[in-house]
Amino acid sequence: METNRPTNPAAEEILGGYFPVLDHGFVALVDYMGSDGAVEQAARVSYGAGTRKVSQTRGLVRYLRRHRHTTPSEMVEFKFHCAMPMFVARQWIRHRTASVNEYSGRYSLMPLLFYTPPEEHFSLQSATNNQGRGDRARTELYRDARERWERIRAAAGEAYGWMVESDVAREIARIDLPLSTYTQWYWKIDLHNLLHFLSLRVDPHAQWEIRAFAEVMAGMVKRVAPLSYEAWVDYDLVGMSVSRGEREALARLLAVRDDGVAARSGVALCGDDLAELGLSGREVRELQAKLTAPGRPDFELDLGHMRPAGEVAEEMARAVPSFDEKTDGD
Amino acid sequence: METNRPTNPAAEEILGGYFPVLDHGFVALVDYMGSDGAVEQAARVSYGAGTRKVSQTRGLVRYLRRHRHTTPSEMVEFKFHCAMPMFVARQWIRHRTASVNEYSGRYSLMPLLFYTPPEEHFSLQSATNNQGRGDRARTELYRDARERWERIRAAAGEAYGWMVESDVAREIARIDLPLSTYTQWYWKIDLHNLLHFLSLRVDPHAQWEIRAFAEVMAGMVKRVAPLSYEAWVDYDLVGMSVSRGEREALARLLAVRDDGVAARSGVALCGDDLAELGLSGREVRELQAKLTAPGRPDFELDLGHMRPAGEVAEEMARAVPSFDEKTDGD
Amino acid sequence: METNRPTNPAAEEILGGYFPVLDHGFVALVDYMGSDGAVEQAARVSYGAGTRKVSQTRGLVRYLRRHRHTTPSEMVEFKFHCAMPMFVARQWIRHRTASVNEYSGRYSLMPLLFYTPPEEHFSLQSATNNQGRGDRARTELYRDARERWERIRAAAGEAYGWMVESDVAREIARIDLPLSTYTQWYWKIDLHNLLHFLSLRVDPHAQWEIRAFAEVMAGMVKRVAPLSYEAWVDYDLVGMSVSRGEREALARLLAVRDDGVAARSGVALCGDDLAELGLSGREVRELQAKLTAPGRPDFELDLGHMRPAGEVAEEMARAVPSFDEKTDGD
Amino acid sequence: METNRPTNPAAEEILGGYFPVLDHGFVALVDYMGSDGAVEQAARVSYGAGTRKVSQTRGLVRYLRRHRHTTPSEMVEFKFHCAMPMFVARQWIRHRTASVNEYSGRYSLMPLLFYTPPEEHFSLQSATNNQGRGDRARTELYRDARERWERIRAAAGEAYGWMVESDVAREIARIDLPLSTYTQWYWKIDLHNLLHFLSLRVDPHAQWEIRAFAEVMAGMVKRVAPLSYEAWVDYDLVGMSVSRGEREALARLLAVRDDGVAARSGVALCGDDLAELGLSGREVRELQAKLTAPGRPDFELDLGHMRPAGEVAEEMARAVPSFDEKTDGD
Repeated sequence: METNRPTNPAAEEILGGYFPVLDHGFVALVDYMGSDGAVEQAARVSYGAGTRKVSQTRGLVRYLRRHRHTTPSEMVEFKFHCAMPMFVARQWIRHRTASVNEYSGRYSLMPLLFYTPPEEHFSLQSATNNQGRGDRARTELYRDARERWERIRAAAGEAYGWMVESDVAREIARIDLPLSTYTQWYWKIDLHNLLHFLSLRVDPHAQWEIRAFAEVMAGMVKRVAPLSYEAWVDYDLVGMSVSRGEREALARLLAVRDDGVAARSGVALCGDDLAELGLSGREVRELQAKLTAPGRPDFELDLGHMRPAGEVAEEMARAVPSFDEKTDGD
Repeated sequence: METNRPTNPAAEEILGGYFPVLDHGFVALVDYMGSDGAVEQAARVSYGAGTRKVSQTRGLVRYLRRHRHTTPSEMVEFKFHCAMPMFVARQWIRHRTASVNEYSGRYSLMPLLFYTPPEEHFSLQSATNNQGRGDRARTELYRDARERWERIRAAAGEAYGWMVESDVAREIARIDLPLSTYTQWYWKIDLHNLLHFLSLRVDPHAQWEIRAFAEVMAGMVKRVAPLSYEAWVDYDLVGMSVSRGEREALARLLAVRDDGVAARSGVALCGDDLAELGLSGREVRELQAKLTAPGRPDFELDLGHMRPAGEVAEEMARAVPSFDEKTDGD
Repeated sequence: METNRPTNPAAEEILGGYFPVLDHGFVALVDYMGSDGAVEQAARVSYGAGTRKVSQTRGLVRYLRRHRHTTPSEMVEFKFHCAMPMFVARQWIRHRTASVNEYSGRYSLMPLLFYTPPEEHFSLQSATNNQGRGDRARTELYRDARERWERIRAAAGEAYGWMVESDVAREIARIDLPLSTYTQWYWKIDLHNLLHFLSLRVDPHAQWEIRAFAEVMAGMVKRVAPLSYEAWVDYDLVGMSVSRGEREALARLLAVRDDGVAARSGVALCGDDLAELGLSGREVRELQAKLTAPGRPDFELDLGHMRPAGEVAEEMARAVPSFDEKTDGD
Repeated sequence: METNRPTNPAAEEILGGYFPVLDHGFVALVDYMGSDGAVEQAARVSYGAGTRKVSQTRGLVRYLRRHRHTTPSEMVEFKFHCAMPMFVARQWIRHRTASVNEYSGRYSLMPLLFYTPPEEHFSLQSATNNQGRGDRARTELYRDARERWERIRAAAGEAYGWMVESDVAREIARIDLPLSTYTQWYWKIDLHNLLHFLSLRVDPHAQWEIRAFAEVMAGMVKRVAPLSYEAWVDYDLVGMSVSRGEREALARLLAVRDDGVAARSGVALCGDDLAELGLSGREVRELQAKLTAPGRPDFELDLGHMRPAGEVAEEMARAVPSFDEKTDGD
């Protein structure tokens, strides 16, 4: 179709394509509004008559992000269609600045699709991170877990099908489906809030399953607003916060030179020095982690994975328990 | 403790008391800010110097609600501690204008408490309401359902306990807990948004289980801000919307008199007349329902049900699977 | 440009066209996302497998609005470029669910454009509405007011130009510009929140000046999402709320018949009867007003008024005080 | 009054006291809910059964802030009464996550109080900061500016009084009041969003006038939630962001040691080196600024400035233009 709206060919290329995530999930970009140009346009309304010449789009987009001028990024919108296990949906929905319409287990029959963690992500509780995963579990443990999952899901699926067939209210029939059951929704959010979501959800502290979704969405941002994406990687994602105490430490270790920065030869700060600056033991370890050269993640989408909408919809439909339903008009 | 803040004795009386909801859930009001007086104070800042004398608090509060002047109601805050099945939590969390901190299955061990619907609320799918409950199911159906629930929960609970004991990451161990598992959270919201939540959630179209929570919270509003509560019942809860077509119908059926309103003798509108005014068949039935004298629900709390915090916390703790945990300092 | 996104020809026709409002203001629709189809798509994700066939788009859109299922309407977005007097901007900005980037008087030189009320809207304080306009003022009063406005604006404009020329910080130079000075912004909002804004701002209780803007935007909604627009007029704009007491009154005056509604012959409710049902004197007058057949406003845009962006921008630029500015690179 | 709610004596001490800001403005804390304990309580609901012992309140509050776990801070609320010039109000209102009720110029007569910048803050446009103030202006310039302000305000005040006396609608009468006119509002916000507001508004890039308000509010936070305040100063206010390129620079300049950090002797990065890491010229200057030891601002309130509510209200009332008003009942 023809439009006078700004379009982005890289975004158009994936529009409506379904990218698989986990064993039965997906993310599709189904609509978008604006691109880096919309960020620039909104920012420039502030820089009206009489302002000095400002550099090009890339420089402006980077400047805005570096200085946390986030409102122009609200002018770009993304609408996604996603399917994910309910325990992932429960983490996702905590982000309140989005619009969402979810598949309703009160109205509709649930597809009996359950998430099974792959062996390489079946891990023990982390010894250092109170909420995360640590070492990979032994293969026998995984085998035993899979057996249990299969048993639970068979029982839950059988009970669900039986209740629905017995005409029990759907809102009751679904209460014993496991949290691993897939649900789906439309999810719409602006670029500023999406990048905030992604910062939290591609982070290694996020549960691996939601990271898998966030990484695909980051790849979609790269296609809709590539300059904003790049600035986000450089200033937010791989950037970090430095506290007052850490700034004091850096000021002792480094000297400002006319056209750069230099290490102050011979200066070192040990744990006691850092404690004096107010850093706890944990903060010292955090500082040390910040001082290793960062990698630069890339979330490029693999277009070979893209699937047509109809194929995905059919798979969902096949997983719904079938029975002879009394239907009537509305 | 002493305070210079406005307090409300009826609210103080229940502060920190736990009101049971469903088989293992609860709602407790743990803090609040303001009362009807705060609504009035905020409204009167608009009506500053030179305005006409306005009537008393009750009249003002009712006027504001009738005319949807909702911002003054945002000045009153409620903080609740609640426990509910996860399928209820998933409906609840859709209200985005609240602050919430939920028990985390990634950090913490889940209490193995599951919701079992009581027989009188175990119903068939409604024939008229696409999403709701209709007639009560037969007793044998209920008995069979209970057996299935018990089997599923036993399997899910066993698997959870086994994984946790095997030191599997908690974020994985919990993925096959059923949606009937209880979770808990602190939930903070202002009066305006709380009343909007309650309008939707004490409604007969809401799932019965979340209504049970909403009704207790409505009783708490009655104690914190009784005039706002009363206005909400009269103008929102039992009030209704009338469309353009319905207004035209009413104008034909009724005549305005000097000091009141009169029925126009002999006037009747049949289905065809109403269709001509743009009402669909469904809208005619909706109009008819609106024209029956409404009841006036009361959400008075029964203080005899109130339980101390410690007792409730202990019950939760006892339901956590016990095992020898490796603990260490932080 | 080509796009795979849903487009709406009626919206494309006005995209980027500037519609004059008041003496120097404007509204332009500069981008949009989605249409009625996006509302339907979002709603249908709830009505997944196993639900009854639901009627067509129009019926669904009307059903959703009638029953306040507002989340699907959040899936449609509008982005406007607007210029308005600052006292209008101050009312407008109270709607918090939008994204906005405003022209900055700290960075940029303000165009010296001031709003002058037309004589037909220069009115006395209303005797019945505490905040609004009543009878039109006498012509001499208007003439005197214009003279005062001219004097104040000349003085304020001269002072502004002088300070800017003297290189006083712009954030200080602008502090004595009058509230009638025009500002401009980009404003982005979703359909649900836009309709809420419009309900409040095309209302006769809104200040006439902001209504002039709201009416143009309503015309734009009609082109982007015509079914949602029509449902909004029928259920929200011309619809009304009826209180518990009013419902009781209606139930006494009207009888439900098998296929319609009938007036109960001979029944009339006088002021005392209505007072008994809880209606204050003011509420009786409000009820009487509700019982007159409503009109059906139409906000059709006049395309003959549409102006090209460049022409409008030039006018703004010409109103900026000119002086020799020291500029430098960035 | 007695309450079972958590109270904070340091907050109670200033509750309802009015702190002057600028020449006619003020900030008063009129209500609050919760303190650091509420932040801890909300966080600990996540760290339920089976979690390791976590350190004390201070450590937890600091950990949460350092790691941007902001939701527990939403559990604390502040309600302020403030008066400020309208150009300040227009900056303030951009923060959308607060509740506000403002004095209405449509209903009420405006007090004719105007803000006059003090000479020490009457500055030239900054040569380096596109939006801010630079050197102080010459005394004659200030004297001339004052004269102009006085003339404009006299004319605007006279016109306002004359229109109000002539019974012109108030919503029209006020349109030529200057942006320096004082308005007032109740403003309610949670701790998380307040600290975000304060970070932006005590910043040297914020206009000096709004900083004056933010600094008083920061002093109030210090009394309501002292540990959160301290963590905010250390991690947000005096903390800073470091980009990917800057992290690479730091990694080259510094070495991680077993129990601390050391400068790498002899290493220096000149402009070209930093450009190679992707830093623009402006970013190099920003990095150099970050590497100077920061101060530690303190926003302690001076209780000697606190004034009683009645005294302040009277002053406002005296500034309202007086005339014989026709009043009537409601």
